[in-house]
Amino acid sequence: MTASTARPAHATPGHEPTVDVDALTAAMLGPYAELRRGARAVAGDPRFQRIEGLTVAEHRARVLEQLRTLAREGEVLRAFPTALGGRDDHGGSVSRFAELVVADPSLQIKAGVQWGLFASAIMHLGTEAHHENLLPDAMSVDVPGAFAMTETGHGSDVASIGTTATYDPATEEFVIHTPFRAAWKDYLGNAALHGTASVLFAQLITAAPGGPAVNHGVHAFYVPLRDPATGEFLPGIGGEDDGLKGGLNGIDNGRLHFDHVRVPRTNLLNRYGDVAPDGTYSSPISSPGRRFFTMLGTLVQGRVSLDGAAVNACKLALIIAVTYGNERRQFTGGSDTDEMVLLDYGEHQRRLLPLLAETYASTFAHEELLKAFDGVFSGKNDTEETRQDLETLAASLKPTSTWLALRTLQTSREACGGAGFLTENRLTSLYADLDVFATFEGDNTVLLQLVAKRLLTDYGREFAKIDAGGVARYVAGQAASAALHRTPLLRAVQTVADVGDARRSAGQLRDAETQHALLVDRVETMVAEVAQALRPATKAPRAQAADLFNEHQHDLIELARAHAELVQWEAFTAGIARVDDPGTQKVLTWLRDLFGLSVIERNLAWYLIHGRLSAGRARTVTSYLDRLLRRLRPHAQDLVDAFGYGPEHVRATIASGAERARQDEARAYYRAQRASGDAPVSEKQVPSGKIARSSARPAAARSAVDEVPAEATPA
Amino acid sequence: MTASTARPAHATPGHEPTVDVDALTAAMLGPYAELRRGARAVAGDPRFQRIEGLTVAEHRARVLEQLRTLAREGEVLRAFPTALGGRDDHGGSVSRFAELVVADPSLQIKAGVQWGLFASAIMHLGTEAHHENLLPDAMSVDVPGAFAMTETGHGSDVASIGTTATYDPATEEFVIHTPFRAAWKDYLGNAALHGTASVLFAQLITAAPGGPAVNHGVHAFYVPLRDPATGEFLPGIGGEDDGLKGGLNGIDNGRLHFDHVRVPRTNLLNRYGDVAPDGTYSSPISSPGRRFFTMLGTLVQGRVSLDGAAVNACKLALIIAVTYGNERRQFTGGSDTDEMVLLDYGEHQRRLLPLLAETYASTFAHEELLKAFDGVFSGKNDTEETRQDLETLAASLKPTSTWLALRTLQTSREACGGAGFLTENRLTSLYADLDVFATFEGDNTVLLQLVAKRLLTDYGREFAKIDAGGVARYVAGQAASAALHRTPLLRAVQTVADVGDARRSAGQLRDAETQHALLVDRVETMVAEVAQALRPATKAPRAQAADLFNEHQHDLIELARAHAELVQWEAFTAGIARVDDPGTQKVLTWLRDLFGLSVIERNLAWYLIHGRLSAGRARTVTSYLDRLLRRLRPHAQDLVDAFGYGPEHVRATIASGAERARQDEARAYYRAQRASGDAPVSEKQVPSGKIARSSARPAAARSAVDEVPAEATPA
Repeated sequence: MTASTARPAHATPGHEPTVDVDALTAAMLGPYAELRRGARAVAGDPRFQRIEGLTVAEHRARVLEQLRTLAREGEVLRAFPTALGGRDDHGGSVSRFAELVVADPSLQIKAGVQWGLFASAIMHLGTEAHHENLLPDAMSVDVPGAFAMTETGHGSDVASIGTTATYDPATEEFVIHTPFRAAWKDYLGNAALHGTASVLFAQLITAAPGGPAVNHGVHAFYVPLRDPATGEFLPGIGGEDDGLKGGLNGIDNGRLHFDHVRVPRTNLLNRYGDVAPDGTYSSPISSPGRRFFTMLGTLVQGRVSLDGAAVNACKLALIIAVTYGNERRQFTGGSDTDEMVLLDYGEHQRRLLPLLAETYASTFAHEELLKAFDGVFSGKNDTEETRQDLETLAASLKPTSTWLALRTLQTSREACGGAGFLTENRLTSLYADLDVFATFEGDNTVLLQLVAKRLLTDYGREFAKIDAGGVARYVAGQAASAALHRTPLLRAVQTVADVGDARRSAGQLRDAETQHALLVDRVETMVAEVAQALRPATKAPRAQAADLFNEHQHDLIELARAHAELVQWEAFTAGIARVDDPGTQKVLTWLRDLFGLSVIERNLAWYLIHGRLSAGRARTVTSYLDRLLRRLRPHAQDLVDAFGYGPEHVRATIASGAERARQDEARAYYRAQRASGDAPVSEKQVPSGKIARSSARPAAARSAVDEVPAEATPA
Repeated sequence: MTASTARPAHATPGHEPTVDVDALTAAMLGPYAELRRGARAVAGDPRFQRIEGLTVAEHRARVLEQLRTLAREGEVLRAFPTALGGRDDHGGSVSRFAELVVADPSLQIKAGVQWGLFASAIMHLGTEAHHENLLPDAMSVDVPGAFAMTETGHGSDVASIGTTATYDPATEEFVIHTPFRAAWKDYLGNAALHGTASVLFAQLITAAPGGPAVNHGVHAFYVPLRDPATGEFLPGIGGEDDGLKGGLNGIDNGRLHFDHVRVPRTNLLNRYGDVAPDGTYSSPISSPGRRFFTMLGTLVQGRVSLDGAAVNACKLALIIAVTYGNERRQFTGGSDTDEMVLLDYGEHQRRLLPLLAETYASTFAHEELLKAFDGVFSGKNDTEETRQDLETLAASLKPTSTWLALRTLQTSREACGGAGFLTENRLTSLYADLDVFATFEGDNTVLLQLVAKRLLTDYGREFAKIDAGGVARYVAGQAASAALHRTPLLRAVQTVADVGDARRSAGQLRDAETQHALLVDRVETMVAEVAQALRPATKAPRAQAADLFNEHQHDLIELARAHAELVQWEAFTAGIARVDDPGTQKVLTWLRDLFGLSVIERNLAWYLIHGRLSAGRARTVTSYLDRLLRRLRPHAQDLVDAFGYGPEHVRATIASGAERARQDEARAYYRAQRASGDAPVSEKQVPSGKIARSSARPAAARSAVDEVPAEATPA
C-alpha cells in the first residue's frame, strides 16, 4: 500500500518468484471489479467515513444523512427493478455494499437494514402494488424502515415469534398485536429513532367464512410506525431505544410493541400468501413449512453481504498489521546494531500469515457465493435445488468469514501492541463493530447446524437405498457425490474413492490432490459417522430423537466447519487458475498450501485417529507449514497490497509510513552518534573494578540521598 | 446469583452430588477472603462503578475522583510502609486491587498506574528520603503520577529506550532529554491530563572524574511534569493526548517528550544505582544486566494484578452467560410445547463449560501466584531463586488468564446473542477494556518466551553435565526435576519417570495421576526437544544463533503454554483438597477433569504423534469429555454462583432474572390460550384441501392487491 515499504522479494533477483500486484488485485476484485472499484471510490470519500469520538446521537444522524446521500449519488439501488431506477443486478449490488464496511460498518449495516432488508422485503415478499406504492420511498430513504422480525424472546427461531396479525373481515384489516413482553420486536435498526415504517413479521391468523381461526404462520406486513412530521409513534405503537451497543452505534436499534394496531388487508406482503376480503387464506405454496422457508429465503442476501464485508474487514486488518510488522522494529536479534522488524520473527509470521491465507481463501469463496446468489436472484439459475445450494453455501461461509474477521482483527490488534489499541489505528473499532456479525443475520452456530443437517439429508436419501452391509464401502466410495457435490462449488470435484490412496500419497503434502483428498475424506467420513450415530433418531420418539441429535450437536458443527473449509480450499484453488503471471501463481499456490496445511494441522488428531496420516507424516505437516511461512514472508507486503485498498481506505496512522519514518530517524541518530565518537560507552565496556561497588545491601545506597525537591529545574 | 435460578441438581435428590455453594465460595476466595469481601463491598458501591455512555472527558474526571475517594476510604494503601499509613501487606493489597475490575476496569488500571506503578516505583526503587518526601502525595493522589517507561519506539524492549538522563556535575543535576520522535514516552496513564509528576526511565549517562561518559543503562528518575496549579507542562516538557482507545477510556493515556529538562541529582531513585556529586557511579549490583532485571522486577506486581483481574472478568462473563443460558429458551427440542433452555444444548455446554473449568483453574493458580508474590515482596521468602520463580510464574499466568478472559468474554457475548451485544449487559465493554491486557505490562507473546527461556536455561544447566549418549534416558527420567520443579508450584510434584507407564495407564483418563503424567510428560518432552534443536545455537555466531532461535520461536511459545497449563492443573488439584464437602469435591473433580481433558484434547495430535496415546485411547478423550459436560451441566449455576458476586457486581440486565420473567410470562400466555380453547389452530391441523391454492406462480398472487395505504389505522 505504501510505496516505500520494503519488499524483499523484489530486492533480491534470482529464482525467487515475484508477485504482479496489479494483476493479483484484478484477480481478487473478480468479475465485479468495476463495480467494486466504484464502491471503493465511494468508501474513500470522507463524507461517508466514520468520525471517531462522535456521540451516539451525532453518529446516528451522520449515518442517516450518509444513507440519503448514497441514495442520491452512491449507486446503491442496483438490486431494484429497472422500472424503478434500479438495474435488476443482485450480485453486483451486494458486491458494492460489502465495500461500505471500509467507510464505516454502521453505514454498511444501516444500508443493509434499509435496502437489503426493509426495501428488499417489499420487493421480494410484496407484489406489484407494493412495489409501485412503497418501494420508491424506501429506496430514496424518504421512508426509513425497520425490518421487524426478531423479538426479544425469539431470534434464530423465527417461526416461534409471538406477534400476531389477526384478520378482521368486518373492516378488512389486520390487527397487529404484541401479546407479551417477550414478543416485543427488538434489536431492529431504524426502530429507535429514524424508522417511519416497518416490514413486520407476525403470525397470520384468519378464518375462512364459517371456519375456525387458523394460524397460517409467519407472514410479512407493511406497518407504518411514526408520523414522519413529528417523529412520534402512531397510536397503539410504543417502543424503546436499545441504547448503547458494543459497536455499530451509528445505527438506532430499538424495540417496538403494538397494541391492537390496525392495518389494511392489502398491507400484507402477499407474494407467498394472501387473505381474501372474506378471510379466506390462499397461497401458491401448499406446504406451510416450505412457504415459511421460501419467505425467509430473501434473508440470504444479508448473509452474502456480511460474508463479503467480513472478508473486507480482514483485508484492512492485515494491511495494517503486515505493513506495521514490516516497519516496526523491536529487539536486535542477530545484529549488533539494527533491530529486527516484527514480521521477521517466526511467531509473528505464525500469527499473521495463516490468517492472510484464510483471507485469500475467503475472498475467492465469497466470489463463488456471489455467483450462486446472483444466479438465483436474477432468475438465471433459480430452481429449488440452486436455492437450497445457495442457502447452504451462505450458511457455510457467513459463520466462517465473520469468525475469521474477529480472529484476524484481534490478532492484528495484538500484533500491533499498544499502537493497535489506539482508536486512530482502527482495529479496535472494527472489532467492536463486527462482533455482532457472528450472531445476527443467522447465529453462526445455528447456521452451521443447518449446513450439517443439509449434508446429512443429502447423505440420508442415498443411504436409505443400500443395505447395512454396504455401508463401509459406500462411505469410502460414494459419500462424496451424495454428501458434498450438491453444493455448487463441489460438483466439479473428482470423487476420492480410495482413502488408502490419500494416505499413501500424503507423502506429498504440497501436492494439491493430496490436500484435497485429505479435506474431502474428512468431510465424507464425518458425514458417514454422524449419520450412523444419528440413525436411531430416525425411528425414535421425538424427545429421544432430539436428545440423540443434541448429544451429537458438536459433531454436526464440526462437520459443517470441515465442509466450509473444503469449500474455501476449492475456491482458492479455482482462483489461482484465474491468475496468469507464473510468479504470482507460484506465490498464491504456496499461500493456498498454507491454508490447506493449516486446516489439516488444526485437525491433525482426527487424521491420526482415523489412520489417514501416520505419525511420521503428521510431523511433516508442521515442518512443511513452517517452510511455507518462511517462503511467503518476503511476499507478505505484496499480498496485502494486492487487496487494492488505498490510504483513503486504510486510514490507520501506524500503516501510513509514520512508523518507518520514526525508525529511520532513530537509526540515523545512533549511526551519527557512533560515527562522531560522542556516544557514551556502555558500562559493559568499562574495565571491571572501575565501577564503584556500593554496599551489597541496597539499603546502604540511601545515604547518598539527602533531599528530593518537588520540582524539576528545566534547562 | 439469583435465588430463583433452577439448579437441577438440588431439585433431584438421589445419588447426584450437590455443591455447597457457600463453602465453595469460601474456598475460591482463599486465604485473602476477608480482604476480598471488603474490596467487593467497595466494587459494589455505585460511586466506584462505571457509568456507560459518559464522554471521555467525563469518564476520565470520574475515575480520577474515584481514585481520590479510594485513597481516603478504600483501604488501597496496604502495600505501603506501615510508617506511612500502609500495612506492608503486598499480597493482600493485590488481592483487593484485582476486585476493582468489577467496578470499572478503568478504575482498576488507573489505580494500578498510581499505586502499583508510580508510587510503587518510588517505594521499591527509591530510598528513605524519596519515601519520606514523595510517597505520601503519591499515595493520597495529591500528586497523580505517570510511570514513564514505555516509548513510542520501545515497548517490550525496555533496555533499548532512547530517553537519556545525563549527569552534569557542574550543577549536580540530571539532564533529561528525548533525542528523537520514537523516544517520546507513550501510552502512559496520567500523562495526557492529570499527571503532575512521573517516575521516568532513561539511560543514565555519567562520567567519573576524568573518565569517559558511560551509559549505565536504564534507571528511574522522579520528574515533575506539570504545574499542579495550572495543569500546564513545566518548561521543556511537552506532550500529546493518546486520544480515544479501544477501551479503558477512563484513563488519560498520553505521550511526553523532554527537551534538556534538568532535575536534581537526588531525583535519581537510587536504591540499585547512584551517582555521587562528582559523577561517580556506584551500585550494589555489579552486573548491569542483573541490575536492570532487578529494577524491572518491581513490574511483576502489575502482572500479578492483571492475572487476578482477568480471572475476575472471566467470572463475571460466565455468571452472565450461564445464568442467561439457564433462563433463555429457544427452539422446542423434544417437547411439543416448552422450548429448551440454551444450556441444555450440547454445543452451548461445549462452548461455556470448558471455559468455566479453566476459570476455576486460573482462580486457584492465581492464588499460588499471590502467595509467591507476597513471599518475595514481604521479604519472608525473598531469594534470587524465589524472585526468578515468581517472575516465571507471573509470566506464565498473566498471558494465560488475559487470553482466557478475551475468549471467555467473547464466547459469552456470542452465547447471549443480540442481548450480549447491548452495552447494558456488560460483556462488550469488558472485552474492550480487557483487550489491551494481552499486550501491556508485558506482551503475552514476549512473556511466554521468557518462560520458555527459563525452562530451557534450567534444563541446560543440568544438561551440560551429562554426555550426549545419555540424552534419551535423561529426557525420560530427569527432565522434570530440572525443567519444571524450579517453579514453586511444581516442586512437590512426583517426577513421572516412566513414559511407558503414562501410556498404559491412560486407560483411566479420569484418573488424576494419568492426567498429570500426560501433562508433565508433554512439558518434559517439549523442553528436551527444543533444547536439542537449539543446541547448535550455543556455539554458533550470534546471527546464526538468533536465526535458529527464531525458527523455533513458535515451539518455545507452545512449550510455555504447556507449562502454564500444567501449573493451572496442579493448582486446581491442590485447590480441590481445600474443600471439605464431599459433593462439592466430586463436582470440582469433574470440573478439574474437564480442564485436564480439554488441554489434552487440544493437544491430542501431539500425544498421538509422540506415541503417548493410542488412536483408540485418543478417541475416548473426547467421549469422556462429552460425558463430563453432561455431568457438570446441572451444576453450572452453582459453579458460577460460587464466585460470590452479587447483583451489585454483575449488573447485567439479562442476568437479573428479567429473562426468566419474560419466558414465564410467554409460557403462561400460551398455556392459558391452550386451556381456554381460544388458540387458533395451526394450518397443519387443517384438513388438506381446505387451504385455497393460489396459482403456482407466485406472481399471480399480485392480483389480490389493489392499493397499499401509507399509514396504519390504529385500533
